[in-house]
Amino acid sequence: MLSGKNFKRWQQCAILMSAPAFAFASDIEALTKNPQNWAMQAGGMANQRYSELKQINKDNAKTLQVAWTFSTGVLRGHEGGPLVVGDTMYVHSPFPNHVYALNLEDQSIKWKYEPKQDPSVIAVMCCDTVSRGVAYSNGKIFLQQADTTLVALDAKTGKELWKVVTGNPKAGETTTNAPHVFKDKVITGVSGGEFGVRGRITAYDMNTGKEVWKAFSTGPDADMRINPATTMTWTDGKMAPVGKDSSLKTWKGDQWKIGGGTTWGWYSYDSATNLMYYGTGNPSTWNPRQRPGDNKWSMTIFARDLDTGEAKWVYQMTPHDEWDYDGVNEMILADIKVKGQNRKALVHFDRNGFGYTLDRVTGALLVAEKFDPVVNWASSIDMKSGRPIVNAKYSPELTGPDVNNKGICPSALGTKDQQPASYSPKTGLFYVPTNHVCMDYEPFKVDYTAGQPYIGSTLSMYPAPSSHGGMGNFIAWDAGTGKVVWSKPEKFSVWSGALSTAGDVVFYGTLEGYIKAVDNNGKELWKFKTPSGIIGNVNTWEFKGRQYIGVLSGIGGWAGIGLAAGLDKPNDGLGAVGGYKDLAKYTNLGGSLTVFALPPK
Amino acid sequence: MLSGKNFKRWQQCAILMSAPAFAFASDIEALTKNPQNWAMQAGGMANQRYSELKQINKDNAKTLQVAWTFSTGVLRGHEGGPLVVGDTMYVHSPFPNHVYALNLEDQSIKWKYEPKQDPSVIAVMCCDTVSRGVAYSNGKIFLQQADTTLVALDAKTGKELWKVVTGNPKAGETTTNAPHVFKDKVITGVSGGEFGVRGRITAYDMNTGKEVWKAFSTGPDADMRINPATTMTWTDGKMAPVGKDSSLKTWKGDQWKIGGGTTWGWYSYDSATNLMYYGTGNPSTWNPRQRPGDNKWSMTIFARDLDTGEAKWVYQMTPHDEWDYDGVNEMILADIKVKGQNRKALVHFDRNGFGYTLDRVTGALLVAEKFDPVVNWASSIDMKSGRPIVNAKYSPELTGPDVNNKGICPSALGTKDQQPASYSPKTGLFYVPTNHVCMDYEPFKVDYTAGQPYIGSTLSMYPAPSSHGGMGNFIAWDAGTGKVVWSKPEKFSVWSGALSTAGDVVFYGTLEGYIKAVDNNGKELWKFKTPSGIIGNVNTWEFKGRQYIGVLSGIGGWAGIGLAAGLDKPNDGLGAVGGYKDLAKYTNLGGSLTVFALPPK
Repeated sequence: MLSGKNFKRWQQCAILMSAPAFAFASDIEALTKNPQNWAMQAGGMANQRYSELKQINKDNAKTLQVAWTFSTGVLRGHEGGPLVVGDTMYVHSPFPNHVYALNLEDQSIKWKYEPKQDPSVIAVMCCDTVSRGVAYSNGKIFLQQADTTLVALDAKTGKELWKVVTGNPKAGETTTNAPHVFKDKVITGVSGGEFGVRGRITAYDMNTGKEVWKAFSTGPDADMRINPATTMTWTDGKMAPVGKDSSLKTWKGDQWKIGGGTTWGWYSYDSATNLMYYGTGNPSTWNPRQRPGDNKWSMTIFARDLDTGEAKWVYQMTPHDEWDYDGVNEMILADIKVKGQNRKALVHFDRNGFGYTLDRVTGALLVAEKFDPVVNWASSIDMKSGRPIVNAKYSPELTGPDVNNKGICPSALGTKDQQPASYSPKTGLFYVPTNHVCMDYEPFKVDYTAGQPYIGSTLSMYPAPSSHGGMGNFIAWDAGTGKVVWSKPEKFSVWSGALSTAGDVVFYGTLEGYIKAVDNNGKELWKFKTPSGIIGNVNTWEFKGRQYIGVLSGIGGWAGIGLAAGLDKPNDGLGAVGGYKDLAKYTNLGGSLTVFALPPK
Repeated sequence: MLSGKNFKRWQQCAILMSAPAFAFASDIEALTKNPQNWAMQAGGMANQRYSELKQINKDNAKTLQVAWTFSTGVLRGHEGGPLVVGDTMYVHSPFPNHVYALNLEDQSIKWKYEPKQDPSVIAVMCCDTVSRGVAYSNGKIFLQQADTTLVALDAKTGKELWKVVTGNPKAGETTTNAPHVFKDKVITGVSGGEFGVRGRITAYDMNTGKEVWKAFSTGPDADMRINPATTMTWTDGKMAPVGKDSSLKTWKGDQWKIGGGTTWGWYSYDSATNLMYYGTGNPSTWNPRQRPGDNKWSMTIFARDLDTGEAKWVYQMTPHDEWDYDGVNEMILADIKVKGQNRKALVHFDRNGFGYTLDRVTGALLVAEKFDPVVNWASSIDMKSGRPIVNAKYSPELTGPDVNNKGICPSALGTKDQQPASYSPKTGLFYVPTNHVCMDYEPFKVDYTAGQPYIGSTLSMYPAPSSHGGMGNFIAWDAGTGKVVWSKPEKFSVWSGALSTAGDVVFYGTLEGYIKAVDNNGKELWKFKTPSGIIGNVNTWEFKGRQYIGVLSGIGGWAGIGLAAGLDKPNDGLGAVGGYKDLAKYTNLGGSLTVFALPPK
């Protein structure tokens, strides 16, 4: 086992050995290749949330016990998870976005960073004060504050190295995403689709904080770093250039300027092609009649060249969204067999309830199938056009404003929200936390005022019709065929990121606060009730020969907004308060990390 | 093992069988006799914090693991602990004083009570927003809110049955003590010695909330329920009547009206004599020159008849206090051998650093010895007068105002504060959490304004000189001889209540957040790091055949006020902020219950 000096040496060697691949720029790719670390939010750049560690396995997982715990000192929704690099753990909190560096030796606090932020930012955070965590690279910790300030800290001391303001909270722009470091760039997005924000992604030089490039989700080609001739999209069964003004011509007038397409999810990167991947959110407003057209490139998977930001290809999952099915969920990069062929695939579980498999190099659409049979807004995806075949009955565009369109599945928070899935190269399966929730959706006309909610729909949410009566399932998915392999019912949405391991154990958390371990067949091996509901992501690492599992608990997020913000009207929280009202019978506000290991020998 | 219906039946039988002792008034004494419950804050009326349970013992304690956890949803200092009655646990929080009833079967929340209180009360709480917990009796939960409101709740539903306002926060009166139920009365006190409050204790009818009696700590005899002829005190080596105006003649003018003597500690009760016991706090102000005289009956142990409130006897530990050595610490009732004789003893570890053993029936002083050799403000207690022999060098009265009197031991927070000790009838020893902290004390003249701080001294605190350099010890004490049997050093003050058990294991928590188990000789058997620093008290109970250990963590209280209230000037928090500044390297704000058990078979 490597630690202390040996670890440092290993780190240096790893950097030297793999230098050609990432040009001496960052140690992060090398760090993620050592499973003792959990050096990125998803464990690695491919967003697989898989670990080669196997000390904890399907036979001994039932003996897991709590090794230690740590309170973040902050209540409300705790998304994301801690990073581990060598002998240090970096833990973050929701607003006001504390960061703690813990010594893994004795869990003492090496340093803490507690930024001062104007609390008025909370009023423009649609779905709780969450943060999806920090990034590490080259001795720096990158923190994306809620108020859009991106900060680089010295990972040894916690001292500020640089900071840059990336948006304007007065106009409803906030940030909840984790920053991601790919090569020498730290990349961040923006939240605020419910405030008419214009989505974009920005790359900064990780050493100086200087902006390298910015790419909007909507508007003129140049703003989007779209090349009409070379940026490709799936068209008529093949890839073709998007052509001139591919966004502008899908919006009425200047609506694209307040058109959403925010970027608050998880990003991935493939060093082989130098492409980074992410998705864009809903078009603003939620009242579809106010924005005729496809509203490109909201609800879109982007593949961009990391160095220039230029879009290599795009794919829009939900043209002209009528349901708030943001496309921000993670893109998992995996080399898998699709319909018998080996593919460099990108797998994406969209809010709209379809699981997509694309060729990540070309952008070609390979598979698009429902990952919950209850999905009813579209019957299927037309594989030639790549467009959903919308069910007129569940189309708020067709039923119109001020009409309550009932029984739409999934609800606005999707068959899956940002809580990231896991891919096990060992089993070839994807383990997906899902929501099993439907909604009534009543759009209405709304006027835009900067910094004011720009939603334009009333919602209510409730459990989807099903045999088990619950609001969620934890499923295994075959992305090569687009089939659910198994489905484990849960009382509430599974709002926690999953982790799969070489020990043939898959972990996830529940809104009631249980962390659970299941085997590759979905059989429950173990569970433990943490102090609060879990919307964080399960991580693993090794320290001094022992494998650890860690997860943040702290109820909140969209599903838990009723408890987190003390709301009690059913339609509050964009419909979530009524849908998840029973959560209060099972859990309570909190904010702490719980760490597990096998019993000491 | 008893549970569900059988438990109910047992409860009823226990009530019937022991009826003569408590006149059908309350089930609480019977409930405390079943070690499956932890039905009072101290486990029982004698404040022993001892349990007959022995499934967890000195041989297997090293295998203890976390069984489940629960977040209180509130940050800052968590004193006291949960109650367990049958299949239900009652958990409280600091301000705003939430109460949760948990189903022990699955830890789901049966009900919660979240009172609305004016947050301005926080400004008049000297030493954090703590609450020392709730009381149970006859299907009711009694909650003492910070704003002095005493509430009775239906233990089944959480519905309010009655509430009564017991003080005036605008005049600096707040409440942090747990209510105590003895027979048919619920008894509560008052905090605010730093605001010139006039201390008293009040008994209410537990069924209606009607005041039965009130007894002040200072003033006219009638107000104090002192009978000059029959209320006795230790005088010249024997008990003698206190005489007329025993308080009034020890104060200058009307100073007794703002003279402190608050009552925020733990109360005990002996049904054999129908006497209840408690201590009173510091005289106001902290500048001794402003209040010449003994300042009776501040700093005093009171023995009162439960039915009438009349004082049977009194004993003042620290006449004319010059150091803020409140006398509120618990009175532990134990039948022990003192200097060879069997005694119905009362044992009290005072803030002033002396461990007192008295005859609890008569009030006779039997033993008074230092329980930390570092104590220097007095050389000893004169056993004839019962008065301390004060060291002139460390007397702020003598050195005078505006002079910094350095090196006084212990500091104002005492060799022990309210964190309650435990007595094991099995070993005959007392297990005492202690502070090992000294101070510089500089009194100054202060004017009284209702509701404003009335302190009159500047303090700084620092570790006491010692070989281990720490700020605390966990000790075993022989109250019959007044000797430390063993002393286990700790880095910080031990600010957690102790628990001893028939399994020969003693538990306590540390400010860094460790719960520890030691054997009867002080050998550490096990420790576990909870989410936040521990200032709560360790409790135990049994459910469905399994013994559990539980403790609240949540750093705060006087020692942790720097972290809890975000203070950073060394003299803030009455000197505690500087003294405990290193705590921030080890723990963080939190608020959760952690429950432990042996591994499932």
